[in-house]
Amino acid sequence: MKILIKNIDIIRCEEEVKVEKNVFVGIENDKIKFISKNFLEDFKFDYEIDGKNKLLMPGFVNSHTHLPMSILRSVGSDTSLMDWLYNYIFPTEKKLTKKHAYLGSLLTLVEMIKSGTTAINDMYFFADEVAKAAYDSGIRASIGVNIVGDEFTDSMKSEIEDVYKNYNNVDNGRISVNLAPHAMYTCSKNLLKDVLEFAKKLNVNIHTHIAETKDEYNYSMEKFGVSPVKYFYELGYFDLKVIAAHCVHLNDEDIDIMARKKVICSHNPTSNLKLASGIAPIPKLLEKEAIVTIGTDGCASNNNVNIVEEMHIASLIHKGYNLDPTLVKASQVLKIATSNGKYIFGIDNMGDIKEGYKADLVIIDLNKPHLYPNNDTISNIVYSAQASDVDTVIVDGKILMEKGEVKTIDLEKLYYEINKIS
Amino acid sequence: MKILIKNIDIIRCEEEVKVEKNVFVGIENDKIKFISKNFLEDFKFDYEIDGKNKLLMPGFVNSHTHLPMSILRSVGSDTSLMDWLYNYIFPTEKKLTKKHAYLGSLLTLVEMIKSGTTAINDMYFFADEVAKAAYDSGIRASIGVNIVGDEFTDSMKSEIEDVYKNYNNVDNGRISVNLAPHAMYTCSKNLLKDVLEFAKKLNVNIHTHIAETKDEYNYSMEKFGVSPVKYFYELGYFDLKVIAAHCVHLNDEDIDIMARKKVICSHNPTSNLKLASGIAPIPKLLEKEAIVTIGTDGCASNNNVNIVEEMHIASLIHKGYNLDPTLVKASQVLKIATSNGKYIFGIDNMGDIKEGYKADLVIIDLNKPHLYPNNDTISNIVYSAQASDVDTVIVDGKILMEKGEVKTIDLEKLYYEINKIS
Repeated sequence: MKILIKNIDIIRCEEEVKVEKNVFVGIENDKIKFISKNFLEDFKFDYEIDGKNKLLMPGFVNSHTHLPMSILRSVGSDTSLMDWLYNYIFPTEKKLTKKHAYLGSLLTLVEMIKSGTTAINDMYFFADEVAKAAYDSGIRASIGVNIVGDEFTDSMKSEIEDVYKNYNNVDNGRISVNLAPHAMYTCSKNLLKDVLEFAKKLNVNIHTHIAETKDEYNYSMEKFGVSPVKYFYELGYFDLKVIAAHCVHLNDEDIDIMARKKVICSHNPTSNLKLASGIAPIPKLLEKEAIVTIGTDGCASNNNVNIVEEMHIASLIHKGYNLDPTLVKASQVLKIATSNGKYIFGIDNMGDIKEGYKADLVIIDLNKPHLYPNNDTISNIVYSAQASDVDTVIVDGKILMEKGEVKTIDLEKLYYEINKIS
Repeated sequence: MKILIKNIDIIRCEEEVKVEKNVFVGIENDKIKFISKNFLEDFKFDYEIDGKNKLLMPGFVNSHTHLPMSILRSVGSDTSLMDWLYNYIFPTEKKLTKKHAYLGSLLTLVEMIKSGTTAINDMYFFADEVAKAAYDSGIRASIGVNIVGDEFTDSMKSEIEDVYKNYNNVDNGRISVNLAPHAMYTCSKNLLKDVLEFAKKLNVNIHTHIAETKDEYNYSMEKFGVSPVKYFYELGYFDLKVIAAHCVHLNDEDIDIMARKKVICSHNPTSNLKLASGIAPIPKLLEKEAIVTIGTDGCASNNNVNIVEEMHIASLIHKGYNLDPTLVKASQVLKIATSNGKYIFGIDNMGDIKEGYKADLVIIDLNKPHLYPNNDTISNIVYSAQASDVDTVIVDGKILMEKGEVKTIDLEKLYYEINKIS
């Protein structure tokens, strides 16, 4: 498939975040073939998109998700974390079936694609169903097999092996598999050690919650004498690629370790605020050149997966909390929400608009009153844009959404099927 | 005009915030005529709206706005407050004309109506142009005449008298006028005293910035020996109805004064975060039963006027900052964003869905993936909904928007006119 996008403004994100006006972009198969000021006569395209009043930018990467949790949307709002977990979430999760996991994942994925998300990093039970939904949706996904307990059982290993065999690196590498030990307080040290060895053997990433709450930090200090970050560090986890969700409670040494070991921080501001976990030290992580990305977390603690709004909140909260309006600037937020996602996938040519780069792209409709006048495109996208401004979504060179309509998932059928089981 | 809305779910907001399923609502002229479980045969309507998969709720009230500032959208983002004001905003504002003020106001109003705002409380220069735009748009508006300086000049008085004469209480009371001395640090004590007397004479509200920044609080303490709230209190301001924007830096006595004197606090979380003013003590104000409302502030410090997102941020920030997820619950936020706005307008029968109440209403389209499944309607609206879910907006019984299309303002013509002058 060859796609021509003509006369469009673009945002480049990888090095300097900057806007280029009125260019032609050609896509061939999964890659960007050219970016040009003029139309290239010899590019025979199958499909043409008019870029007038539109903006082309790298797609958003949601670095911490629990796809099936849309089924639990708005369950237990305004309750304390432990009340929420033990009286609302865990009892409901016990009743979830494979069918719930698949359909809930699809529902979350429709919402994600509609808000311009082109890639995700997930962890949940029923990873096979989550992987199938991600595969069917067309999104780029790293699917984490959720691991909890005292020991690494044969059934855990066999689940991992099945998901790995069926989904790792399928469809041109669009789907990959990671191991997701839930957290240091829900997995024993022995389990974590075994999981690490297994991840090394399979050569896959680790995805886990680190330092989400003050209680977790205190538990780690009391039980092991080190912070959660240092605990994982001393276990050798950071010799692999680790996506660490939340990272709210970090000391200075933790920040140094994360920066030095290139741990990928998934910043989840809405979830951290709603569950009252606290406010992550993102400005300090950025100062140390750590890798920061943005995640929505699951739908029960957010209660949507709107990455555009997550970007607004990520951009605002650190200025207000630290009383410094120059922190976490629009250009930084845009890079964090798009280009930095590449580090999760091990794909070097991803997360920017450049020749030879993966065609994981979104087109924003600028013809909206809240984006007018356009005094500063980057600032408008980071501080003013809404999910509903996303017009077109392209992943691996395939159009998943056009003019706001998701092409890979039948939403009305999905509503019908969810009604049947809920 | 008589409108019938059939088979719709409604949220009542005034006392207990609660959902009623599948009712008929009749609107006659500017008021809600009936709410009924059954169709009333003798209601001869001119217009019918099908409520299937929709929700009817009181419209949002934006209690602190500067309508013309959409013209300055995204100007000077990520700079310090003083840099922003003196190097970006003030120099640009000096160049603004009456034409800018009118067109900028209309642009902001389109965005507001599209996000479900049915009433606003504004302050800016060129109040006559702002009032004209509000009048033309069909929104309910209290228009503040901006006042700054050392003394109450004849030209200020004459501007106020003109705006008052032309707009106060026009169109069935839809537009009203207030006096808006900018702030205690931009108006001399003498000016504030004179403005207060003039407001008493005209019998209008006062709209001003109070305790926005720590610097303002410190200035007030150093120069006058009292906090900004107490300064206005001692001047006698709170014997009138005062809408106090921001209220970020309050001591316990300030909170008591505000609650006792029924000062209307306009909470502006996005602006306070973006300009790094700080985080307002909203939970304490609510505990003392003070009147809290929500405002977006102007488009240069936000950078949109999306009241739905403002509601999300208002709901999240206080939980995270105070490390208590039970604070500022969804039902409280909904009441703050809708029903509490009535206190600004001196209209008792406004801000709820009740017989005889003003028909200032919005219809939300629930048929969206991010509002599905509907485990908790109130929580879904407060934590998941997006501005683009607003389908229909009714003010004073007139339909301003239907199926997302604003009927009172020609947006393409407006873009064209703004392009000509910018």
